[in-house]
Amino acid sequence: MSSSRKIRVGVAGLGRIGSLHAENIAGRIPFAELASVVDADASRAEEYGNRYGVPWGVSTDDILSDQSIDAIVIATPTPDHPRTVLAAAAAGKAVFCEKPLGLDEAETVSIIEEVESLGGFLQVGLHRRFDPDAARVKSLIAENTLGEVYSFQTSLRDMYPQPMEYIRQSGSFFVDVSIHDLDVARWLIGEITEVSVFGSSVSDPEYEKLGTVDHAVIVVRFENGALGVLDNSRIAGYGYESSTEIVGSLAAARIDASPRSNVSVLADASSCSDHVIDFVERFHDAYRNEIVEFVRSIREGLPPQVTGSDALAAFVLGTACDRAFTTGKTVQLNHELTSGGVRYSIVNP
Amino acid sequence: MSSSRKIRVGVAGLGRIGSLHAENIAGRIPFAELASVVDADASRAEEYGNRYGVPWGVSTDDILSDQSIDAIVIATPTPDHPRTVLAAAAAGKAVFCEKPLGLDEAETVSIIEEVESLGGFLQVGLHRRFDPDAARVKSLIAENTLGEVYSFQTSLRDMYPQPMEYIRQSGSFFVDVSIHDLDVARWLIGEITEVSVFGSSVSDPEYEKLGTVDHAVIVVRFENGALGVLDNSRIAGYGYESSTEIVGSLAAARIDASPRSNVSVLADASSCSDHVIDFVERFHDAYRNEIVEFVRSIREGLPPQVTGSDALAAFVLGTACDRAFTTGKTVQLNHELTSGGVRYSIVNP
Amino acid sequence: MSSSRKIRVGVAGLGRIGSLHAENIAGRIPFAELASVVDADASRAEEYGNRYGVPWGVSTDDILSDQSIDAIVIATPTPDHPRTVLAAAAAGKAVFCEKPLGLDEAETVSIIEEVESLGGFLQVGLHRRFDPDAARVKSLIAENTLGEVYSFQTSLRDMYPQPMEYIRQSGSFFVDVSIHDLDVARWLIGEITEVSVFGSSVSDPEYEKLGTVDHAVIVVRFENGALGVLDNSRIAGYGYESSTEIVGSLAAARIDASPRSNVSVLADASSCSDHVIDFVERFHDAYRNEIVEFVRSIREGLPPQVTGSDALAAFVLGTACDRAFTTGKTVQLNHELTSGGVRYSIVNP
Amino acid sequence: MSSSRKIRVGVAGLGRIGSLHAENIAGRIPFAELASVVDADASRAEEYGNRYGVPWGVSTDDILSDQSIDAIVIATPTPDHPRTVLAAAAAGKAVFCEKPLGLDEAETVSIIEEVESLGGFLQVGLHRRFDPDAARVKSLIAENTLGEVYSFQTSLRDMYPQPMEYIRQSGSFFVDVSIHDLDVARWLIGEITEVSVFGSSVSDPEYEKLGTVDHAVIVVRFENGALGVLDNSRIAGYGYESSTEIVGSLAAARIDASPRSNVSVLADASSCSDHVIDFVERFHDAYRNEIVEFVRSIREGLPPQVTGSDALAAFVLGTACDRAFTTGKTVQLNHELTSGGVRYSIVNP
Repeated sequence: MSSSRKIRVGVAGLGRIGSLHAENIAGRIPFAELASVVDADASRAEEYGNRYGVPWGVSTDDILSDQSIDAIVIATPTPDHPRTVLAAAAAGKAVFCEKPLGLDEAETVSIIEEVESLGGFLQVGLHRRFDPDAARVKSLIAENTLGEVYSFQTSLRDMYPQPMEYIRQSGSFFVDVSIHDLDVARWLIGEITEVSVFGSSVSDPEYEKLGTVDHAVIVVRFENGALGVLDNSRIAGYGYESSTEIVGSLAAARIDASPRSNVSVLADASSCSDHVIDFVERFHDAYRNEIVEFVRSIREGLPPQVTGSDALAAFVLGTACDRAFTTGKTVQLNHELTSGGVRYSIVNP
Repeated sequence: MSSSRKIRVGVAGLGRIGSLHAENIAGRIPFAELASVVDADASRAEEYGNRYGVPWGVSTDDILSDQSIDAIVIATPTPDHPRTVLAAAAAGKAVFCEKPLGLDEAETVSIIEEVESLGGFLQVGLHRRFDPDAARVKSLIAENTLGEVYSFQTSLRDMYPQPMEYIRQSGSFFVDVSIHDLDVARWLIGEITEVSVFGSSVSDPEYEKLGTVDHAVIVVRFENGALGVLDNSRIAGYGYESSTEIVGSLAAARIDASPRSNVSVLADASSCSDHVIDFVERFHDAYRNEIVEFVRSIREGLPPQVTGSDALAAFVLGTACDRAFTTGKTVQLNHELTSGGVRYSIVNP
Repeated sequence: MSSSRKIRVGVAGLGRIGSLHAENIAGRIPFAELASVVDADASRAEEYGNRYGVPWGVSTDDILSDQSIDAIVIATPTPDHPRTVLAAAAAGKAVFCEKPLGLDEAETVSIIEEVESLGGFLQVGLHRRFDPDAARVKSLIAENTLGEVYSFQTSLRDMYPQPMEYIRQSGSFFVDVSIHDLDVARWLIGEITEVSVFGSSVSDPEYEKLGTVDHAVIVVRFENGALGVLDNSRIAGYGYESSTEIVGSLAAARIDASPRSNVSVLADASSCSDHVIDFVERFHDAYRNEIVEFVRSIREGLPPQVTGSDALAAFVLGTACDRAFTTGKTVQLNHELTSGGVRYSIVNP
Repeated sequence: MSSSRKIRVGVAGLGRIGSLHAENIAGRIPFAELASVVDADASRAEEYGNRYGVPWGVSTDDILSDQSIDAIVIATPTPDHPRTVLAAAAAGKAVFCEKPLGLDEAETVSIIEEVESLGGFLQVGLHRRFDPDAARVKSLIAENTLGEVYSFQTSLRDMYPQPMEYIRQSGSFFVDVSIHDLDVARWLIGEITEVSVFGSSVSDPEYEKLGTVDHAVIVVRFENGALGVLDNSRIAGYGYESSTEIVGSLAAARIDASPRSNVSVLADASSCSDHVIDFVERFHDAYRNEIVEFVRSIREGLPPQVTGSDALAAFVLGTACDRAFTTGKTVQLNHELTSGGVRYSIVNP
């Protein structure tokens, strides 16, 4: 491949994240070229195809059968992930798939193994690792600026609640929402040996009726014995928040809440600055960077920076939180290093 | 009493906190006058007596028998508290006593009841309520700026660890260290219905050998169902921290980590500002304000702003944390409103 | 033109700014396509041509004679600007040219008029207007959030000094460095009626020997009577700074110094955060956005957002500062609205 | 004197600053005792006398003739300063006098010389030097953390304008308002060799009619050649501001705008924190500290920390600004070191 050749990428699924990926690939990713878009909704596919001047369709097969396309971004509904990932790998496309890979652990394991046996390239959409702030903290840890980790805290809070209709149909709060924090926790600090979970429904009794929560506190223990606290809210109201703190024996590091700009407005003896309002704004760079790195890995023949094994680990940790919440008991976890990466298993209860 | 008359205050116990109280009363508390100082260590008592030009002695009785003295600040070792509080109340002195009042719940209850039957004035040293930042948050809540509380978080972290010698002799981590956060939690948010506790010993295995911890995470549930997280560290290293966050349905409020000044120093493309290093620096105003209000309450014939009942509640909550930590189980709490204030009791286990 | 067609852009001049433009156009500008690169240094041109898979050459004519190319970005040395702008306009290319357009006022006027008579499209590289922070402040003013402007302050400071070799050959400090602040001042606040200038050479006596300065303070008066202060430094040392403050009758707005991330590191009772180190880092988005808007204006048939007239105004203001510095006297300025935009002239001395 | 003896202080003049001094001395200054208060308004004097339980009167002679009184704080109207300072010095009282000492340079010189010949103790109320933030910056400079000073900037802005009635009667803006910044500039950075002044009247044409301004920019040059910018506003509107920045060859230091607390309130995707509203709030500690040091100097037999010579220097600098504003020209200043301190003189025009 010429060193300057662009990777041609098709995007399958043009929902909120899929359309963001399409927009990025069309004009913000070096050495990438948007090649095709598909969505089950033909008018949506047509709209995006016209906007970016690329072929469009309603079937992912359009992408898979196009020999000129190098890679696919899969942002279709979750139930569709397993089939599409496998078909794409079989068609020789490099695959980027939004999390989760599968609906349960067994299915996820089977996808990972099949892609591996096909020698396929699979990167999973754990975008938080590509946030520049997270990357900065990761390097502070790698350089041992922080020393041994004493404690970890992270907050993930939506400003506005999802419609109750969505809550009703969505799966586990912990697999759906907390999974990104669990992934970041193990990526930054290390493997997790137990989780305890507390939930509350304070904004609307409907959450409790549905067996879910609007707020959760997850206490984890890391392999070195240190404790971590992850708090999640579906309805923080004041703004979107994703902040993190790590205290170590040598120093502490904080990822502060994200301002929207460097502008402050002062009036009435008060100084105010705007904050981000949702994950798209907060993680704008992260969503772009994960595709930049996806394309770079393909071009340079490197392994994916986030593997199926990482997605599986986060999934099992989310499942463990689910169980801890349901039983009201601390859930212990084992992990072992396999050829494909770390493999978690729930010990009890 | 002339409206301008000063309250004459004796200070018993000239350790770190007692000597701070003496210094404040000698020159920083309006309408107060340091009248006498006593400490078991005669040379220390003499040093302070000479410094401020007041009589000194080794026995608290010197204060209690002096008819010209209106009030006493008790900062002697804890085992001495019950006897001294009761003797002072019996001698007709207004009493300010550092926490805890007694060594166990029964003794504390008995002190409170006896002082009450004597018609005495007793304020307990829960200084955190007098921190201007905490007071500001309290008024934000009172004015309903925050709306219904959705979550609460507070961190209390020492920069430097206590000597292991001290750890060995000190009592429960939770009754000793966490008690102030537990008090602030119920003062700001409301009564607590359960506590769960997680501890770790990551800085030194000696903590674990002594059956204690260097880090703790306390998850509480408030009466309205909201969760709170209190994290404590004996050895944060980076600085002293006492910060708090409350998220409500209308707004959130944060007490940020305390800068030492408004000065920042910029060099090498980095901007740095100094933080406080210990509780004396962080709560300098709070320690002064609690005595300002002690004196004001006496002068104006008002009831104490922090009662024995508050001290008892914090003590029982600390004890509940102790039990939750030891058993590894969530501890439920009941509370009822008595004539003397809120009365907590442990339900299980 | 199909609504999705990409604008094909050639870049002439691959120095620091030119190569940044080439990199952006190659992979970060929606609906843009890098079509060709040229530089007087053939090896540099070849390197970039190969990197992005586009034709390369040593002559701007390669771009101008290519009928498939829509637009040109001119980042060649300043003496080359007039000839290239005119040739490009004559060749029917949309033109983006780095400032300054010409070496003196008369030449600049003549370029503007000739491009206008050709019906050409000319945008000048006053990138600061495309900084998201500046845009936010501009909209605060447009919405009258600030009320009538009472005062304006802006600081522009390099972290590292340029080599003395460069200083020796560069032109006026004010036309070279201050021109961006002068442009932002009139864009945000309004036209300027007088300038007074103070300079100092404190880091190295060589500056004074060369008749120039390492620090300058420019005091301007705006049409409404309000004062503005612009301070510039060639050698701030602590970091790169571009910050601004506007105080108005209703509110004030500040563009604070730019942090590099949302990460702070705490150690030794000090909290530190990294700042940007140079204009490329500080204005990364601004440099991208000005080309995004260049491309958008061409695609949508809109006039350029920054005109030759704007470049001329900034140039005359810089010249006025030069004269104020040399004479030690306040320089008065007139301005009138012409068909081509605002036209400044120096009144005295 | 017993090492613990309190200094007995009388306060003359119970306006805004005088009553603040009385309140501080009555209850917030170690080793000080409020001994007497006087004010031309008998009811005001009576009110304060009763409040603090001290004798009161309408004549300063009441203080001067009381042999039990060690010191006097003079906060009477300016025209009264010379007579009172001299009478107090003659009566053997240690004197603290608000600035300015006299109404013109000659009178000020004569006061200083007479007090000196009497061997009197005279501290002048340049409180800004006792601001903890300013003291921190002073020590950063003393320790050479900043290196050679490259530039200095300071802003002093009132939130609310004074009544036009007050403006009509008050003297020079620069002697009245800017004097504190001029004092801080020379105290922190060094002696000043020239001043240039720019003024504007943008909030109300009445200022211009009265020959004064509502905003001013003062550009000073220091002895090492560095430039300083002092900006003042009578009507900033957004809050009270006193902030300072020093850039040096090794580092920069900033005194940021003063928050009222460490509390921020977040709502509607915006984070707000309260700022101080006036100089009493901003410099609360400074006003206290200057009296703490006044009392300490007397007790320990030390010379005053702010001398008459300092007050004179600030006065002459203010006068020079006045002249620079009136003439529209830069005013050069000489200074020489005399036995009594630095002595400034205006060179031109």
